[in-house]
Amino acid sequence: MAETAPATGKAGNQYRIESLAKGLSILRLFDENAVSLKLREICDRTGIPMPTAFRIVSTLEEGGFLDRTADGSFRPGVSVLTLGSAALRGSSLVQVSEKILADLAAATGETVNLGVLLGDQVLYLARLRNADLVTANVQVGSTLPAVYTSMGKLLLATLTPQEVSERIGPDAFSVHGGPNAVRNREELDARLAVIRQQGYAIQDQELALGLRSVSVPVYGNAPAAVAAINIAVSASRHTVESLRGPLLAQLRAAAADITVRLRAL
Amino acid sequence: MAETAPATGKAGNQYRIESLAKGLSILRLFDENAVSLKLREICDRTGIPMPTAFRIVSTLEEGGFLDRTADGSFRPGVSVLTLGSAALRGSSLVQVSEKILADLAAATGETVNLGVLLGDQVLYLARLRNADLVTANVQVGSTLPAVYTSMGKLLLATLTPQEVSERIGPDAFSVHGGPNAVRNREELDARLAVIRQQGYAIQDQELALGLRSVSVPVYGNAPAAVAAINIAVSASRHTVESLRGPLLAQLRAAAADITVRLRAL
Repeated sequence: MAETAPATGKAGNQYRIESLAKGLSILRLFDENAVSLKLREICDRTGIPMPTAFRIVSTLEEGGFLDRTADGSFRPGVSVLTLGSAALRGSSLVQVSEKILADLAAATGETVNLGVLLGDQVLYLARLRNADLVTANVQVGSTLPAVYTSMGKLLLATLTPQEVSERIGPDAFSVHGGPNAVRNREELDARLAVIRQQGYAIQDQELALGLRSVSVPVYGNAPAAVAAINIAVSASRHTVESLRGPLLAQLRAAAADITVRLRAL
Repeated sequence: MAETAPATGKAGNQYRIESLAKGLSILRLFDENAVSLKLREICDRTGIPMPTAFRIVSTLEEGGFLDRTADGSFRPGVSVLTLGSAALRGSSLVQVSEKILADLAAATGETVNLGVLLGDQVLYLARLRNADLVTANVQVGSTLPAVYTSMGKLLLATLTPQEVSERIGPDAFSVHGGPNAVRNREELDARLAVIRQQGYAIQDQELALGLRSVSVPVYGNAPAAVAAINIAVSASRHTVESLRGPLLAQLRAAAADITVRLRAL
């Protein structure tokens, strides 16, 4: 995953404390695809030498940010959840959207999500899921490859080609996607062009077989979109065309509602 | 909130990197009751001098762990959610409990929670809520005072008086609770004695007016409970006696199921 804010190496922040930055870079290695790592893997992935890495993980463990498992590997301690909870409660975007998304989920009976771009991933900030058996295995805090998701492509479509290149390298297409997944930058650019023109993004079994979704942008006071919201459905119940019908209209009304409230803050 | 693992000051960890430990102690200031802090407040609460604190928050900001708000205060960045998500996916307790709690919620039609003790708080690791209008404003990652909750008192009842004293100071009773909240250590000890004897904890409008819950312990391979699960109800629909009936029986069956699976890991 691309780093949005590299903490080591680059010049720029004259106030940076290197040992703290190294600790944060180790914490950032963990996401739901890397829930536990051995010290050796931590060294390999960060380039931090073993003795330093040992002292860092020891400090992270003492501070409750990492737990040591029975086999000697490290994983984030559950107490970091309080930090995430503070981030969610402190996010005016999440606060403002909560009720509107709940109403949208109730009115449509479908799964509704709110996401932002984090590197080359979509980070899920809110998720109200319906009772469909087949759905993406996603929760608040989950990340999915932006190139395979409707929210991700919608948000990528708001960026310049140069900004897209900074986030989306060739590796972005190597992860396993659904049957209709884009396979390279050219295919991605073609879809982004369509999305820019129509103002919404549809994902038809690009993430996984059986899943479709439609996304629209949410704006704050800046010209750029601050987030996307989507309706995610089972392909067995909705065609691509039905996503473009009343569901898109309801989604757009919810996005307009969130935008109005964000601009009033 | 009591610290489970103080990162600064105490001797003990000869490998500790002080600047990293200070950064972690600043991150630990944030929870859902402290979603944003000014630099001055950070200094006051940690005792870290302003110039050092400035360099630390600057490094945390660069690393994506803190965001600076329009008024110059700091709050956790939403990217810390990925760390929490990794913690949840890496937690065998959460993995093992997920389906069992979902079945319990479906069978009872009530709100179901999974929590652990974190200092003097209960940290919610899972929450499946029903459609009741009146409910605790809690999500995964939320913390509530242990002394006012059924899960908290249940888990405190498994500790020695000395361990309770280490977690629960006089301040623990100063937070606003419900009409039946315990007000001091003596009242708490009396309730813990009852809980130890009966093997479950009932909370009757101790957290807030209108809310009741019943909790039982979950065990792993150690003799001490690893977590609690509860059923939380609206006082308008359930008396304390009805919590002791079929709901407690179903809760106990779920706890036994989780315990068997944890011990098989």
